[in-house]
Amino acid sequence: MSVFSFNKLVIFGVGLIGGSLARGLRERGAGGLNAGRVVGVGRRWHSVERALELGVIDAAAALDDDAALAEALKGADIVLLAAPVAQTRALLERIVPHLEAETLITDAGSTKSDVIEAARAALGARAAQFVPAHPIAGRESSGVEAALPDLYVGRNVVLCPLAENAPEAVERIAAMWRATGAVIGTMSAAQHDRVFASVSHLPHVLSFALVDQILASPDAELKFSFAAGGFRDFTRIAASSPEMWRDVCLANRAALLAELDAYTEVLAKLRAAIDTGDGATLETVFARSRAARSAWQERGGKRAAEAAPDK
Amino acid sequence: MSVFSFNKLVIFGVGLIGGSLARGLRERGAGGLNAGRVVGVGRRWHSVERALELGVIDAAAALDDDAALAEALKGADIVLLAAPVAQTRALLERIVPHLEAETLITDAGSTKSDVIEAARAALGARAAQFVPAHPIAGRESSGVEAALPDLYVGRNVVLCPLAENAPEAVERIAAMWRATGAVIGTMSAAQHDRVFASVSHLPHVLSFALVDQILASPDAELKFSFAAGGFRDFTRIAASSPEMWRDVCLANRAALLAELDAYTEVLAKLRAAIDTGDGATLETVFARSRAARSAWQERGGKRAAEAAPDK
Repeated sequence: MSVFSFNKLVIFGVGLIGGSLARGLRERGAGGLNAGRVVGVGRRWHSVERALELGVIDAAAALDDDAALAEALKGADIVLLAAPVAQTRALLERIVPHLEAETLITDAGSTKSDVIEAARAALGARAAQFVPAHPIAGRESSGVEAALPDLYVGRNVVLCPLAENAPEAVERIAAMWRATGAVIGTMSAAQHDRVFASVSHLPHVLSFALVDQILASPDAELKFSFAAGGFRDFTRIAASSPEMWRDVCLANRAALLAELDAYTEVLAKLRAAIDTGDGATLETVFARSRAARSAWQERGGKRAAEAAPDK
Repeated sequence: MSVFSFNKLVIFGVGLIGGSLARGLRERGAGGLNAGRVVGVGRRWHSVERALELGVIDAAAALDDDAALAEALKGADIVLLAAPVAQTRALLERIVPHLEAETLITDAGSTKSDVIEAARAALGARAAQFVPAHPIAGRESSGVEAALPDLYVGRNVVLCPLAENAPEAVERIAAMWRATGAVIGTMSAAQHDRVFASVSHLPHVLSFALVDQILASPDAELKFSFAAGGFRDFTRIAASSPEMWRDVCLANRAALLAELDAYTEVLAKLRAAIDTGDGATLETVFARSRAARSAWQERGGKRAAEAAPDK
């Protein structure tokens, strides 16, 4: 069991992700965890106020209130950015005038190269204080009301440390996530973005695209009325937030395009096999794919099989 | 409640689909249902024997035993083909020498144009006795052991009647399926094949393709190890039978290629939007797609949401 304690944690964006971190640290108190004060900062007052009412945070500040922001960041051990990735640079620019030398900043964004670029631009020489991270957890519902103390139990949190991060800084962020029950993985930002472009961002694009293609067809109603279990599973992720996935696609553009192009090549190969009646190729690809999918399910997919949608 | 009775039903291929029809007719006896004798015919003796042991059928015949086949078909009201669609023509050629004038034949194949072509080739002038059908139901498991009396309750069965089918013949097959609890829909074979190419066959190809693309990439292991809920849902149908989906792809080639090409165009449009940073297009497509997916779920997707994989 990890030992982790803090005096003050400041969360920018107290929704599902930030709220679950706060609840996880406060309510999973075993093993030497010593939870300090949690302050929430939000653009919209009503959402931080709601977090306060629910007891998820101890104090709240509005992002545009300079004095409150200064007070919030005073003596902070750790700052978590849990707002949409597109806001990273603007948030860090608001934070940096009040940032103390001992404070570490981390984030929870689904993409990493763009977040790191934003952090370097906003923090400059102080980028060593920023440890990029991505907790792989989510739920169908969002907002602080959906926050759960055990959201991260058994889930992966990927750290993408910067060259200038001190090892102790990286370890401290890892310890925080471990205290919520998460499992820590480390990779480069480029690796991270390739991996999630492949197993998360691309499937979302493909799923949205299928529904859109059906909608555009002349017999869309008939098609929807006979869609069954296969369609349901394939398009479940098309129920995800359009704004969030627009931002993810643009933030991870290079890696996503590379995966999309590789995918299009596989589709072209399958198209040719269907067109020429090459059953052997189809069966080979389908069988290989099924075997890999089954092996994944066996190995660790059970954990993923219970998991909620990606974020 | 439908009234349906029969003296003798002969099922070619007593697996999940054929076995569930037999059990549905025998075990859902309310409302005037009068279940007669059910005979199973199979290529592999051990599977019809298993159906006999389980009491799903009353008698069994091996497909290659001419005398037993003649005896099985003698006085049959209805013959159901519930073997893989690629076997349709060969099965009908075995049946036709023993086919009585009063016997109706129907099938349970996932594709219809190719089945009708096979039926016309094998039956010639007697094609009027063949009423094409497709029950939209399935389970993860297969074989007669997986057969359930209520597999078809609330599920769609699509009939694609031939011009030469007598209305009474079509109604009789509809009544049989209604007696299992199914809901009857009717469309042309071309419509059927377009609809299922779109909402079932294409998603299977896309799902197999994603797993295959990941497998071929240099960091496949890393990708699989971080795949989570989105990947799980999107690729659940990649756990389907390679042989069955090879046959479906080839049997429904024309409709599937048309859907695949239309899909590839949507993907190209999204690729261009990602490439040029056109967030408005991405958000429009994603939002439209999400709204349609949600409306589907609201309308009738609840039934589909409980459904097992397509067949």
